[in-house]
Amino acid sequence: MENILKKVLVFDGAMGTLLQEKGLTPGACPELMNKEEPKKVREVHKAYVDAGADVVTTNTFGGNRIKLSEYGLENEVAEINQRGVEVAKGINDGKYFVAGSVGPTGRFLEPLGDMTFDEAYDVFKEQINALAKGGADFIIFETFHDLGEVRAGLLAAKDVCSLPVICSLTYDGGRTLTGVTPRSAAIILESLGADAIGANCSGGPEELYPVIEEITRTTSLPVIVEPNAGLPEMKEGKVYYPLDPQLFIEKMVPFFNLGMNIFGSCCGSSPLHTKNLKQKIKNITILARNVERRSTLASREQVIFLGEDTLPKIIGERINPTARKKIAQGLKEGNYGIIQEEGAIQVEAGADLLDVNVGTPGIDEKETMSKVINLLQQNISIPLVIDSTNHLVLENALKNYQGKALVNSINGEQESLNKILPLVKRYGAGVIALVLDENGIPETAQERKKIAHKICKSCEDYGISKKDIYIDCLALTIGTDDNSAKETLETIKLVKQNLGVNTILGVSNVSHGLPSRSKINSAFLAMAIASGLDVAIINPLDKNMLTSLEAASFLAGRDPKGNNYIKKNSLEVKEVEINASIPSLELV
Amino acid sequence: MENILKKVLVFDGAMGTLLQEKGLTPGACPELMNKEEPKKVREVHKAYVDAGADVVTTNTFGGNRIKLSEYGLENEVAEINQRGVEVAKGINDGKYFVAGSVGPTGRFLEPLGDMTFDEAYDVFKEQINALAKGGADFIIFETFHDLGEVRAGLLAAKDVCSLPVICSLTYDGGRTLTGVTPRSAAIILESLGADAIGANCSGGPEELYPVIEEITRTTSLPVIVEPNAGLPEMKEGKVYYPLDPQLFIEKMVPFFNLGMNIFGSCCGSSPLHTKNLKQKIKNITILARNVERRSTLASREQVIFLGEDTLPKIIGERINPTARKKIAQGLKEGNYGIIQEEGAIQVEAGADLLDVNVGTPGIDEKETMSKVINLLQQNISIPLVIDSTNHLVLENALKNYQGKALVNSINGEQESLNKILPLVKRYGAGVIALVLDENGIPETAQERKKIAHKICKSCEDYGISKKDIYIDCLALTIGTDDNSAKETLETIKLVKQNLGVNTILGVSNVSHGLPSRSKINSAFLAMAIASGLDVAIINPLDKNMLTSLEAASFLAGRDPKGNNYIKKNSLEVKEVEINASIPSLELV
Ligand SMILES: [Zn+2]
Ligand SMILES: [Zn+2]
Ligand SMILES: [Zn+2]
Repeated sequence: MENILKKVLVFDGAMGTLLQEKGLTPGACPELMNKEEPKKVREVHKAYVDAGADVVTTNTFGGNRIKLSEYGLENEVAEINQRGVEVAKGINDGKYFVAGSVGPTGRFLEPLGDMTFDEAYDVFKEQINALAKGGADFIIFETFHDLGEVRAGLLAAKDVCSLPVICSLTYDGGRTLTGVTPRSAAIILESLGADAIGANCSGGPEELYPVIEEITRTTSLPVIVEPNAGLPEMKEGKVYYPLDPQLFIEKMVPFFNLGMNIFGSCCGSSPLHTKNLKQKIKNITILARNVERRSTLASREQVIFLGEDTLPKIIGERINPTARKKIAQGLKEGNYGIIQEEGAIQVEAGADLLDVNVGTPGIDEKETMSKVINLLQQNISIPLVIDSTNHLVLENALKNYQGKALVNSINGEQESLNKILPLVKRYGAGVIALVLDENGIPETAQERKKIAHKICKSCEDYGISKKDIYIDCLALTIGTDDNSAKETLETIKLVKQNLGVNTILGVSNVSHGLPSRSKINSAFLAMAIASGLDVAIINPLDKNMLTSLEAASFLAGRDPKGNNYIKKNSLEVKEVEINASIPSLELV
Repeated sequence: MENILKKVLVFDGAMGTLLQEKGLTPGACPELMNKEEPKKVREVHKAYVDAGADVVTTNTFGGNRIKLSEYGLENEVAEINQRGVEVAKGINDGKYFVAGSVGPTGRFLEPLGDMTFDEAYDVFKEQINALAKGGADFIIFETFHDLGEVRAGLLAAKDVCSLPVICSLTYDGGRTLTGVTPRSAAIILESLGADAIGANCSGGPEELYPVIEEITRTTSLPVIVEPNAGLPEMKEGKVYYPLDPQLFIEKMVPFFNLGMNIFGSCCGSSPLHTKNLKQKIKNITILARNVERRSTLASREQVIFLGEDTLPKIIGERINPTARKKIAQGLKEGNYGIIQEEGAIQVEAGADLLDVNVGTPGIDEKETMSKVINLLQQNISIPLVIDSTNHLVLENALKNYQGKALVNSINGEQESLNKILPLVKRYGAGVIALVLDENGIPETAQERKKIAHKICKSCEDYGISKKDIYIDCLALTIGTDDNSAKETLETIKLVKQNLGVNTILGVSNVSHGLPSRSKINSAFLAMAIASGLDVAIINPLDKNMLTSLEAASFLAGRDPKGNNYIKKNSLEVKEVEINASIPSLELV
């Protein structure tokens, strides 16, 4: 089934305008026609089939309970959607596909609006269930402004049926109305199991080109584009789309070089647009797209790419009530301003991701975590790390977090793996796994590698990619064991060489109980980066740590041509050299 | 032959007092008696042989040209010494050994005095030649105050004959009169090929005990002790030694537990002391001594021990006219005060060794190097690194330097190896070898390791121990090649793992041409220590470098229990933590 979406496909075009031409009253419910005037709907579909469309899209865009309730039709969801599919099938020889169309509810999920994830999920589940029952070949989420909403829909689709799912958002000036970037959308939706990703509607082909280009560079999934027939203008009191079929095709040509394979049109288009598109596409060759499969994490706005030729990433560790009274106090009093501020200063200092730990006595961890996650995802642009070992806390947080989160953490204990890995898989997250198990923390690197290996096998069983595994090689204090740092560094090397997953470290543990911890931590960070560390959990306000990371990354070949290092340091030369007395022979 | 000195041996005792009893006039030349009154000399020897001495020492202590010239006997060196041996041989059944005694000239070598190395060398060569011709079983240098002098003698002995050589200095309060420590003497004399090392004369057994204990801990060679019969007092206008044979033996007992094997007595002793010693020793078991064979470098005062459980060592790089105008100027103008000052501030900052490079246009490198070496060895306590690629400069400097120097440097070119390795061997130095050859610097670690391997083979051919090889794995700037630091670190690892020699690096080259070099250098130093670096050539005035070295050493297990780190940092906690804003969660 899934292979359908890897073919070159031409989708149909606008539905609403054509229905209006056939007598749909302005203000009436278009989807009700599936039930009440199926012939007219079928005529529109037939026009597109005749034009050569490989796919017709059902007249069910507004067919969810919330939208239909505006017309008092909230109890007609099943019938309207099921009929919507039926009416689109079996035209001519029937050799085309039917895409079950799902549009937004018109409400926003928390934290932007007041709809909960579960509400949205249920609404989409109901509609998609009907579309699947009607016999749709796949599901297409279209014209979504918000990632949170489409995300709930996608999860519902995956639960309800085994049909392939296309997710298409609409963009304005490079972002959706709610600020989602194409890159984030691509990463997050792919991680949740979307089968094709793209964009539709919007200001037409030219406005969507950079969006689609970004998406084709980010995901290796099939990509879809269905632009409007240009940016609509008002002419003589009527909406007018400037791109006639000929002009539209001209503007569509650049997409053919992006290695994408699904093309259609949206508002303002007609069967003639579809016909031209189909004819043009006959003569083109779809290029192979070679997207490097990197490890990624993402917020709604930012994607973090990990890899051996990129800088190791920094997770800011400061939102953690353990041993931080200020944070504990803020959480207890519900004074989340402190938490937000703590997030903001870490972003400012250079954190790539923020760890969020709210585990402190006297609070409801599950509820507090969700509140804090919602607050931070609305106000902080970088991706979050959800730090709890309680699977209920994690599940609720993962539902609410609209990015590709990192879960912190599991370990080699079977219970931990069984409870948390299904959540990691379902919500498309990455996962930090500590190399310890029922028997505690092994002393030697070899033993730790064994646990890491077991964890990786478990992840594989749950369908979690190696790229989403982050092995925490465990820094322990050298205050009590001279060998502990060496074993940790060796663990990083072994895990990198043998398992091919990401490595992560809570660096500052190494200096627990010792004086001048920043000195030890920063030297250890350089050593860990030399051993292959990908992610460091640190206090980003410690400048020594950032300096060490910048320099060590350059030295380890993870800052090509030292671009980052030189950018950060070219203005600081004088200041530093005064501090260091005589930093190089040349200057004396 | 050499095995003689590994046996338990009892040496004879005082000679001068016994000759006086037999009529030697005060103020007359004792050694002249070998020629003029050989019977009396033989009687003394016979008394010791009768007492059970395994070794009799020839009456040639003052038999060198300089001493004999005080009596106008400078042309009698050959005869006096040759007869001195002959008269000591063949007494009773002749089943004992004859040690050819060599004492100091009474003059001091440069820089303490005005005697050159070559003068001293020639003087000793003449005397030892005669002792060997006379048939001595081995040579014993006795009662030397100065390492420079005995060093010249030892080299002469090794050139003149193949007899085993014992070197025995005399100590006062734990050092020789010229400031040499027992540890330095042991390391330096062993490196020059001495066959047994020890101490004699001095304030008697109790004063020599800590000296000998130190020597037995430092060298694995046979150790000799020949104390005076206690600290001499003046009684009724005569020198009086408080330890009679019985008391002397009691004080000698502690030495028997040190794993040493050669015992005798010196001033104030008599054949009865020897007899008691011989009887006592019959009943003891000489314990095996297990001295760890570490890499060492030494000045007259300080020994640097290298090893995987000790801190990596710092070579101060600042005495180098290349790109340092101040130094170049000082050398040209003969203003060596600047050089001495530059040495002193590096010692103060924490350097373990000082690199000395005087190569600058417009000076006589050979002469300048010797002057600077002499100045520094007189005024700076730490060992020196002689930095030149000119073998004539090196040879002259090595003659003059009275420590165990490090030669900087050779490389894999055959000419470099052939010219310099013989000098390294002869003067008992360590040698820095760059991993480059006729074809330049190889890019990859594997190729560099190959050159290192070739160098090690060459060193082996010349009889140079692995422990004296320091492979410079070559830091090149990352400004022009992202991989250069990685290859250097990999070279360190390969060399450590496969060749078992020391590794060394001129660390700051890695940041050539880049801003904020100290940041890169200090991160690189931490990484290099993690890879196994033993010695870092750095600017010790750069505090970042010392901080990095201290912390990285602790982390790499090279600062057991972090003793050094904690000592250096326990007082600095507050200051540092203010700088680092928030160095650890606990403190906020
Ligand atoms: Zn549209
Ligand atoms: Zn004496
Ligand atoms: Zn003596």
